[in-house]
Amino acid sequence: MKIIKIAYIGGGSRLWAQSFMRDLALAEGIGGEVALYDIDIPAARRNQQIACRLQALPQAVSRFTYTVATSLDQALIGADFVLISILPGTFREMDSDVHAPESFGIYQSVGDTVGPGGVLRAMRTVPIYEGFARAIRRCCPEAWVLNLTNPMSACVKALYDTFPRIKAFGCCHEVFHTQDFLCCVLREMTGVQAQRRDIYTDASGINHFTWMTEARYQEYDLLSLLPGFMEKYFETGYYEHGPADQWEHDYFAYGNRVKMDLFRRYGALAAAGDRHLAEFLPGAWYLASPETAHSWHFSLTPVSYREQNQAKKEAEAAAMASGAVPVTLAPSGEELVRLLRALCGLDMVVSNVNLPNAGQMPGLPLGSIVETNCVFTNGLVKPVVAKPLPAGALALVQRNCANIDLLCDSIKQRDLNGIFAAFAAQPLCDGLSLRDARTLFDTMCRNTEACLAPYFH
Amino acid sequence: MKIIKIAYIGGGSRLWAQSFMRDLALAEGIGGEVALYDIDIPAARRNQQIACRLQALPQAVSRFTYTVATSLDQALIGADFVLISILPGTFREMDSDVHAPESFGIYQSVGDTVGPGGVLRAMRTVPIYEGFARAIRRCCPEAWVLNLTNPMSACVKALYDTFPRIKAFGCCHEVFHTQDFLCCVLREMTGVQAQRRDIYTDASGINHFTWMTEARYQEYDLLSLLPGFMEKYFETGYYEHGPADQWEHDYFAYGNRVKMDLFRRYGALAAAGDRHLAEFLPGAWYLASPETAHSWHFSLTPVSYREQNQAKKEAEAAAMASGAVPVTLAPSGEELVRLLRALCGLDMVVSNVNLPNAGQMPGLPLGSIVETNCVFTNGLVKPVVAKPLPAGALALVQRNCANIDLLCDSIKQRDLNGIFAAFAAQPLCDGLSLRDARTLFDTMCRNTEACLAPYFH
Amino acid sequence: MKIIKIAYIGGGSRLWAQSFMRDLALAEGIGGEVALYDIDIPAARRNQQIACRLQALPQAVSRFTYTVATSLDQALIGADFVLISILPGTFREMDSDVHAPESFGIYQSVGDTVGPGGVLRAMRTVPIYEGFARAIRRCCPEAWVLNLTNPMSACVKALYDTFPRIKAFGCCHEVFHTQDFLCCVLREMTGVQAQRRDIYTDASGINHFTWMTEARYQEYDLLSLLPGFMEKYFETGYYEHGPADQWEHDYFAYGNRVKMDLFRRYGALAAAGDRHLAEFLPGAWYLASPETAHSWHFSLTPVSYREQNQAKKEAEAAAMASGAVPVTLAPSGEELVRLLRALCGLDMVVSNVNLPNAGQMPGLPLGSIVETNCVFTNGLVKPVVAKPLPAGALALVQRNCANIDLLCDSIKQRDLNGIFAAFAAQPLCDGLSLRDARTLFDTMCRNTEACLAPYFH
Amino acid sequence: MKIIKIAYIGGGSRLWAQSFMRDLALAEGIGGEVALYDIDIPAARRNQQIACRLQALPQAVSRFTYTVATSLDQALIGADFVLISILPGTFREMDSDVHAPESFGIYQSVGDTVGPGGVLRAMRTVPIYEGFARAIRRCCPEAWVLNLTNPMSACVKALYDTFPRIKAFGCCHEVFHTQDFLCCVLREMTGVQAQRRDIYTDASGINHFTWMTEARYQEYDLLSLLPGFMEKYFETGYYEHGPADQWEHDYFAYGNRVKMDLFRRYGALAAAGDRHLAEFLPGAWYLASPETAHSWHFSLTPVSYREQNQAKKEAEAAAMASGAVPVTLAPSGEELVRLLRALCGLDMVVSNVNLPNAGQMPGLPLGSIVETNCVFTNGLVKPVVAKPLPAGALALVQRNCANIDLLCDSIKQRDLNGIFAAFAAQPLCDGLSLRDARTLFDTMCRNTEACLAPYFH
Repeated sequence: MKIIKIAYIGGGSRLWAQSFMRDLALAEGIGGEVALYDIDIPAARRNQQIACRLQALPQAVSRFTYTVATSLDQALIGADFVLISILPGTFREMDSDVHAPESFGIYQSVGDTVGPGGVLRAMRTVPIYEGFARAIRRCCPEAWVLNLTNPMSACVKALYDTFPRIKAFGCCHEVFHTQDFLCCVLREMTGVQAQRRDIYTDASGINHFTWMTEARYQEYDLLSLLPGFMEKYFETGYYEHGPADQWEHDYFAYGNRVKMDLFRRYGALAAAGDRHLAEFLPGAWYLASPETAHSWHFSLTPVSYREQNQAKKEAEAAAMASGAVPVTLAPSGEELVRLLRALCGLDMVVSNVNLPNAGQMPGLPLGSIVETNCVFTNGLVKPVVAKPLPAGALALVQRNCANIDLLCDSIKQRDLNGIFAAFAAQPLCDGLSLRDARTLFDTMCRNTEACLAPYFH
Repeated sequence: MKIIKIAYIGGGSRLWAQSFMRDLALAEGIGGEVALYDIDIPAARRNQQIACRLQALPQAVSRFTYTVATSLDQALIGADFVLISILPGTFREMDSDVHAPESFGIYQSVGDTVGPGGVLRAMRTVPIYEGFARAIRRCCPEAWVLNLTNPMSACVKALYDTFPRIKAFGCCHEVFHTQDFLCCVLREMTGVQAQRRDIYTDASGINHFTWMTEARYQEYDLLSLLPGFMEKYFETGYYEHGPADQWEHDYFAYGNRVKMDLFRRYGALAAAGDRHLAEFLPGAWYLASPETAHSWHFSLTPVSYREQNQAKKEAEAAAMASGAVPVTLAPSGEELVRLLRALCGLDMVVSNVNLPNAGQMPGLPLGSIVETNCVFTNGLVKPVVAKPLPAGALALVQRNCANIDLLCDSIKQRDLNGIFAAFAAQPLCDGLSLRDARTLFDTMCRNTEACLAPYFH
Repeated sequence: MKIIKIAYIGGGSRLWAQSFMRDLALAEGIGGEVALYDIDIPAARRNQQIACRLQALPQAVSRFTYTVATSLDQALIGADFVLISILPGTFREMDSDVHAPESFGIYQSVGDTVGPGGVLRAMRTVPIYEGFARAIRRCCPEAWVLNLTNPMSACVKALYDTFPRIKAFGCCHEVFHTQDFLCCVLREMTGVQAQRRDIYTDASGINHFTWMTEARYQEYDLLSLLPGFMEKYFETGYYEHGPADQWEHDYFAYGNRVKMDLFRRYGALAAAGDRHLAEFLPGAWYLASPETAHSWHFSLTPVSYREQNQAKKEAEAAAMASGAVPVTLAPSGEELVRLLRALCGLDMVVSNVNLPNAGQMPGLPLGSIVETNCVFTNGLVKPVVAKPLPAGALALVQRNCANIDLLCDSIKQRDLNGIFAAFAAQPLCDGLSLRDARTLFDTMCRNTEACLAPYFH
Repeated sequence: MKIIKIAYIGGGSRLWAQSFMRDLALAEGIGGEVALYDIDIPAARRNQQIACRLQALPQAVSRFTYTVATSLDQALIGADFVLISILPGTFREMDSDVHAPESFGIYQSVGDTVGPGGVLRAMRTVPIYEGFARAIRRCCPEAWVLNLTNPMSACVKALYDTFPRIKAFGCCHEVFHTQDFLCCVLREMTGVQAQRRDIYTDASGINHFTWMTEARYQEYDLLSLLPGFMEKYFETGYYEHGPADQWEHDYFAYGNRVKMDLFRRYGALAAAGDRHLAEFLPGAWYLASPETAHSWHFSLTPVSYREQNQAKKEAEAAAMASGAVPVTLAPSGEELVRLLRALCGLDMVVSNVNLPNAGQMPGLPLGSIVETNCVFTNGLVKPVVAKPLPAGALALVQRNCANIDLLCDSIKQRDLNGIFAAFAAQPLCDGLSLRDARTLFDTMCRNTEACLAPYFH
């Protein structure tokens, strides 16, 4: 059994930390310590208690003890792996990110990656990540660092910019959902049942705006099934994890009509939830208004919903932590533990993650953060060269990639002029006059100034 | 004296042909034949008559005889130089290009380069240029080919795509106007008088969206004078060829406020007329409405004005041709004859032209058509490596360059799906819903279908 | 069970065909037809008979029938896979390739890849491969093409140059031997036993001159064990498949002293047999004379030995074909069938093969044929981006890669001047005066003129 | 008149400093101060006295006063231009550089650029240049720095590596001699007389191993005249500055037979003296022995001759300084002052210099030091994109460029292992066994250890 230490920054998180703790309890061949670190120490303690109960279940396979670290360095020293999933700022800031632009006619379905919300979120996240990178260099320079926080590209870029020899990559599950969608396409068109891990997809681009250029299951070329599928389902929409109209009452569901529309126009399958995809494209296309979004079969997620949801999740967590509610173990479907085991030498996995472009992504600059398949094996992560995107899709990706690079470089230099240039160049801001763009940017900065000290001293 | 044959395709043109004929009459060290070819033969004959009178003036230095060719091949056989300045289609088509989008809220100040009008114009021009390239390969493969027609990038790309060994480049005078503007800046800020050919500028980017990163006259760094200049003139605007408010009654004038605004935000000086620059940027910035354009101190040029103007110019030309009005000789300020003399070995000139990127334009793909300085000398045109653009400006150029490449590749393959992708991706279309974009594209195609046979068979 | 048709060009071959037939008989999940094509029809028939016996053995798992095709097209029509292992020319030509240079002081241990012998062999092989590529385009454009013939890079390049959409790659087992060597290193230094497929290596470069930059087994960084290993074994040498002095009586054995010497000087492990490696380097280093080679613990393989060996193998084959000698089944250790099964969707494999550089090999030109890891899965081969080579090693590889590209381009154009430039630039020719280089080249061309008709018409 | 300060490091030099002082005295439009700095202060004083006499001549046009600086910083502070021409070490070291390799059969015609001598010279020069770069950053970061010292590429690279924003370039006159040679070719083949500045050449590659791909004078394509010229003169040789056999008694003369041989084989004209060219190529080609060199019509320059020559030049200098011998003014034919005047805004010049590759040199890595044409104008140096070299010539240049980059990176890190890798990879060392290469390297290091302290602490 391989003994490892895992540091979890943002160790009080509900979403990522709890699914990770479950998968970890079910993992064969590894054991050791998980050090939870969080600025919300009670949340970390709660997760520690839950983990303790999970590890005590009879189905638990691995042996892990959980500690709560009271400082970042304490968590990191001796770590073999570092996971990072934080909320930069609070929902108060996210409320501004998502909703302040609405008075200028800019609607965001998520608001954490690109668009005005993504820019502001990057502004408050990157300086924090610069600090993480310095701490990792200081405490555990050889550790593998798995980032889960959005905006993904900016976070990963900040880690590499600050500590170029860092062994970091960024994990996201959006591509997996599109793989699930393709399994549905296969089933609907041929009756054949497949699991997402049984199909091979060549996904490439940037995080939340990746595209599939090839997808195969046995003798099936899955992309070639799409035109027929779309004849049947384009109008009604189709959702891989529920009924087609689930988006009407589930803020995270969508009908895949954006994805199908893009496929028809560009010849490649955009591989993220429609709520994400829409934000990388001109505002007038899919997000001109809430009604436009609805006509494409997805909704805008209000931050108030996230807050309520969080309160609910916290209550559940507290109940699990206290033992008032029993904890249960089942695989989450995520890949984190699978990648971690592969890095430990227990498996070989090909999965899509975010890394600086070293040649794997044709058409994007070397050094930009790109998402492609990588081979994970004993102590190594090796990017796989992606098939070139169709020219039309590539142009859309290039535009966003250039904006992200401009944004990150400007943030790094605390250059508000460059940051505003990146803000105004967001596709979601396409309909904004320069005056309005400036007013909105200033407003959003003011709304979140508590988290923007690095820029306003 | 160097004896040469020049073929002029579009030899009935008023603007370019007539200024060229004047400069040619004044050129030292060269002589020979100019073969005018035009589908409007009377217009070519008229220019022949005017040229005959010009050459007969006492100030005429060179010896050139002018002929009217009745076929393209007749003009090209034996040619050392080929000039091309054509109007692809008629003003009827241009009227659709420029004004059809207005009912969708898209306003174009020129409409011949990018934006919806530029896309449609490229669709009807490129197939014609493919024919020119084949004729040049057949008749005069060693000739130098100077293109003057818009959309410049698409025309030059079509020539190289069809006949890769062609010796072609594209000439445009927009950068010269910005050099004039910089001379004004120098005079206003220091009292020093300079001529545009006395200053050195490093201009780079793509045609009509070039940017100056360096500009020097003697000990003066001209770009460093701009902040002070803008303090004085940003509000009122400033026009290099007339009073600041000339734009109010001159459709081709502008107050350079767009240029100054871009300089403030991106740190480099966009080097074309504001009417062109605005079309490369999101429609909401400078072209949201005629009023927005006016607030930035430029107007939208209606095609009806071009028609009236043309009628007037034709009457003038007829009068000159018939001898009813005397012809006069004065340098035009254009560079065509200067470049031509340099290629004949009579001079060495550095001037900005459009060529496939062979390394001269950092940040844009190799092979894309770019505009940078080149050294012109005896039989050679050698691109000069440009200083890298600031990241914000580069991102704007990259977006347009990718659109042009997508458009050209799709036109080459007569792929309407790809062409529409490029259409919808135009910055001027940024505010357009997908449905409206499709409707507009279809309408514009229908309006000009007489010229779009290659796509609709 | 997946039913496939495999065309085997050079289907009378003993080495590759026979190990392939054995592995194929042992393969699970596939079946169908193997069409053997060879200009030596009796040899193909003999292999057919042997295969028939192999398939009849009780251990045989798959169901394959073997046919002998009487024309190339007959073999190719309907093929899903095409394997090519041919001897370009005869041993008569190879005798000239290997031994003619000896009178000029150039000694070759193999003589089939680079050096004077490799150049001449490429000259007679490439035109044949151009024919294969045309036949594949004509008969089975979607087939996967596995090349086994040397010179590997030139063969694969000829396939892609002639039919750019071909799905071809080149397979070689030299890296596997170095993996075996690393298993020995591990065992000698730690006592731990591992199989080569259990270790992960990042090998990159060009065929027969690949280098390992990373090699891991469980927690062991295998390259870091090498300095200690070399302290013990550098003087005596070490052979992964037998005693250290086996090279003294086995023309294919070697003591790995070249490899260890290169590791000491360049910090990466050259990953091919020493007999191959030495030929990519200046002749004075390891091949100044037979004695120099011996001092590095390898021998020069005389072609006469290959001839005797062939006669022996033919007799064995005949005996097996006729049933005079029983046939037996055991895995060969090769990867061909494993890759083929992966392409059928029955496995996922990472293995090193030769492909045009699409970004996987930093420091070599795009389009050059490079050898790196690739992911093989259902219908797809995806190159993995290699870790950059140390600068010193990269310079050595670049030199040879440039020579190969020059050679291939010149052969394609039947340009003897360019071919001679590549000949004179071979590292093995480094000590040759220009006059001698020319004399030698002319002699070698004359010796093999029966196979060089494409150049001398 | 433009008033400038010029710092001359190595200001006691005879060759470069004295021709510079003459050209400077003849320069129109500039004046000011020249600060001579040299570790040999008396030599600097002598030059000061000579300069004083030169400026006093009636033909002197400019007004410059000469000072002798007693420290580097004193020379640099306030400088607008910095010229550097130093002898790294003494002739004692150069004697080892050039002659120590002879006992291993390696003959060098110059020994200051590549080959064993070039490597050792780079080892002692680069650390000095790192110091210069730091001093320039400290004292005059905006100054233009003109390097004249060999090895040119290593010196320029050291300046940019140490101070990336430096405005430095390297000047060399070898290309000019080849331009003179082409004027001779023109005269011999057509009777037409031309001066080298009247022809335009596209020269590219690396210093002392540049190649001309185009050369034009009026209607003449000069390279196309070479085949006819070579029919007449290849056997006898031809020298542009004297009779064909001048090399027999002049150590700096040569018969251009190397250049003609390379042209015949590679289709481009190598553009440096044959003595330099031969050193970039395998030792067996042109430098196998003194007799081989003689057969190609050039000699090996013994360092003893340089010493005698220096003594003679010093005596002459002393005589001029004291007034015992009159000083005279005539243009040197060098370009330094012409470039300097262009940078002052008084001229526009296209000339070949050495700069980091920013795209001007296709086929070599970005950042490597390359020699191509550049446009010199008011305050700007802009590289001109070179025509791609023929593949065979490019491969030869790439090999040397990779060696230089490896050498410079290794020197920068004081990594003797990497330096030795670059040493052994020199084409002139191609015939050397590894043992001999090591022995020679160690010997040469020991011979010059007084200057190699940075490596041996």
